[in-house]
This record gives sequence, C-alpha cells and structure tokens, in this order.
Amino acid sequence: MHYFYSENILDGIVTLSPEESEHCIRVMRHRAGDVVRVTDGLGNLADATIIDDNHKKCQLQTIELTSDNSQKHNGLHLAIAPTKNVGRIEWLLEKSIEIGIKQITFINCDHSERTHLNLERLKRLAVSALKQSQTTWLPSLSICSFSEFIDQNLDEKADKFIAWCDKENTVQLTNFNYTFPDMIVLIGPEGDFSAKEIAYARENGYVEVKLGNRRLRTETAGLFACFAATKRNL
Amino acid sequence: MHYFYSENILDGIVTLSPEESEHCIRVMRHRAGDVVRVTDGLGNLADATIIDDNHKKCQLQTIELTSDNSQKHNGLHLAIAPTKNVGRIEWLLEKSIEIGIKQITFINCDHSERTHLNLERLKRLAVSALKQSQTTWLPSLSICSFSEFIDQNLDEKADKFIAWCDKENTVQLTNFNYTFPDMIVLIGPEGDFSAKEIAYARENGYVEVKLGNRRLRTETAGLFACFAATKRNL
Repeated sequence: MHYFYSENILDGIVTLSPEESEHCIRVMRHRAGDVVRVTDGLGNLADATIIDDNHKKCQLQTIELTSDNSQKHNGLHLAIAPTKNVGRIEWLLEKSIEIGIKQITFINCDHSERTHLNLERLKRLAVSALKQSQTTWLPSLSICSFSEFIDQNLDEKADKFIAWCDKENTVQLTNFNYTFPDMIVLIGPEGDFSAKEIAYARENGYVEVKLGNRRLRTETAGLFACFAATKRNL
Repeated sequence: MHYFYSENILDGIVTLSPEESEHCIRVMRHRAGDVVRVTDGLGNLADATIIDDNHKKCQLQTIELTSDNSQKHNGLHLAIAPTKNVGRIEWLLEKSIEIGIKQITFINCDHSERTHLNLERLKRLAVSALKQSQTTWLPSLSICSFSEFIDQNLDEKADKFIAWCDKENTVQLTNFNYTFPDMIVLIGPEGDFSAKEIAYARENGYVEVKLGNRRLRTETAGLFACFAATKRNL
C-alpha cells in the first residue's frame, strides 16, 4: 500500500498538503474510497480512506492508527559537515532514513568547502525517502555553525562523540560503553575538523572516536555512525 | 599521491595495463621521474618511479614496498542477488570497497528480477573505487546461481548466515557469537529468498539472521553486513 505523509494524523480527518495531494491523486491516481497509508513521521501510521480526491487538498478519514516501535529511530543525532558534492549528502540522508535516524544537523566547519545547503530541498527529499522506505520516522533537519551546535546541545542527555582521523585516536565508536539511549556524533568535512574545533568539542564533553581503521569519506562515516547507533539498540 | 593498480607489484619493475597506463600518462599527465603509488589489491602498496611514460605500457620501478594491515579486508564474503536497478549494486560495490570487503559473489536466485550482470564493467568499477578510496584490498568478484554458491562453499571455514525478512527470525547478525575470522552472508533479491533456497541454506549450515529491525533494501542490507563484519574485527 502507498505511504503518504502528513504532519498531523491523530485527529481522524487528515488534509494532505498540496504536494502530497498532487502525488496521491495526480501521480498515483487514487480516487475517493481508496485506502492508503499515512504517517506523521513521528512513529504513527494510519490506514485511511480517501474521502475527497481533490488534487490540491486531498482529504482522508483515518481507519486504524498504529504506533510501531520496531520503526523507531536509533537515537542518533548526527551533526555532519555538508560534502562539497551535495549528492553525497543527499544519498546519506536517504540511507539514514531507511535505517532510522533521529535527527540530522548540517554543521558549517572551519574547513567546510560548502557553506550553503538548500534545506527545503533536503526536507522534500527526506519525506520522499520516508515514503519510499515505508518507515514512520522523519528526522528533523537543521543547519548551524559548529560552535552553535556545541552550545545548543550542552544540556542534551546523550553520549557525545567527535569522529576524526588521527593515529593517536584509538577509541572505536562501536566499542564504547554507552551511558544514554541517545547519542550525538560529529563528523567533519573533507579536510577534517580544525584543532580549535576538536579542542572546543573536547572541553564540552565530546569523546574523540574513530570509525573503523580506514579513512572514510564524510558520507560513509555518517552511515557508519548510523549503523553503530542501530547496533547499540538491538 | 595518486594510486594506480597492477596485479603484480612484487618484482621491482611494474608494467601498467593499457587502461592504467592511459590513466597515469594521458589523464593524470605523469612523466618519467614522477613518483606514484601502486597497489596489487592484495594488501601491498609501493611507491614507484615512472621509468617509461609510454601511455599504453607505462613502466614503474618500485622504491619501497609496504603491507599495511590496517587496510586489510573485514573477512566478509558477501553473496548478494543483483538488484533490478544495477546502479544500486554498483553503489554497494564502491562503498564496500571503501569500507574493506574480502569477496563479493552475485547470486542468481529464484526471485531475482535481474539475471544478467556485466562483470567486466563491475571489475573496472572496483579498480576505480580502490584507487579513489586509496585502499589496497580489491575484492574478487564472480557470478553464479544460489545453489552453486552453497555447493562451492561447503568446506569454507567461515561463519555462514542467510539474512531474510521474517518475524519468526529473531537472531541479529550483529549479536552473534562468531567462530571464525571470516564470514559469509547471503542477501536475497527484492522479492527475498524462496522457501526452497532458505531450506537449502539451512541444511548446509547457514544460520538465519536479521539485519536490524527494519526491512532494508537489498543494497542497504549488503552494506549493513559489511559494517557488521568490520565491527567484529575491530
């Protein structure tokens, strides 16, 4: 059954956004009376009957609402520098939603080669990945600078890690004894974090870790963290 | 420094293949006297001086040969059904080489939607991924049917797993107590393995496992296995 997305599905009657209405009625050619699935990206999923097949303002009546814990996110808040090639970040976004991530923040770092990101486009891609992988958790997405990120998450109850490439750095993310159900992992740009950034993270409780024994590309490192968080919650 | 690939780099003088010569001399514009890096895809890496900059038959004199254990593969032999969209398998190939895989066999299954693969193209892509990620392990690639694969690997000393989607199937690949340093993981096509295939694998010592709690796409499942094998060897 096709999945659609709407911010609120708890009230019985759901009005799809213009984009989702277009997809449901024009692209998928659903008609009044058809039953589809709709998720709010917060873990809830409903079977719903189309009661108005308007292609700009499609309305659904929910039949059965479920909350599926097996679909819950893996507790990872990934803070990652956008890659020079934006396609690589888009790929990571899709894969991490398929695997189940809690939150993604794109951080501008001292060595970032890309400082601009089209957040609206990434949010659309995220909804599309959510529907395609038929999952019910949509990570929240945002952008800020490295230091803003650290400052905003000072009180966050989570295991905090900064992954960077250094031979002296011998703690593996996957071998760590975790304290909290949630974790934050910082992943730097192609040129890695600056010494100043690493020092600032360390001062604020971030543990330096590595991800395996190889130097991974930024987006592969992000996915590695995503698998590590999933493994921890199994 | 740029990486190049040659099957044999142990004899002091290395003659690059026509493709690698073209890449070294025509594309990268190296000239006699330049120092480059060359790997045999078997864990060996050499710094080498170009002694003949012929663009069809470039010759190198190796200076220093190293064998870097941190670059070793993760012991995973992945047997995976090709996806309908070949781009997804190519993506998996690139990422698994970056992470470090031992061997990949593409298996034709009862529910396979794609039965033909261009193995030569995949081998070229593998060399290119090897050079780009500056690693020294090139997995061997082959194609066969599901039952041929099981029969050929009867005596292989490895932990053997078949990953498939079933609610009854509760063993997580990542939580298994492994016996051998190597492992084989079978991953099926979009339509999953047939009951006959699962029974045949089980009869031959394969343990049924799942990969997390979500239904992953074929290529994401392959990468999950790759991360699990890496984690085990850390």
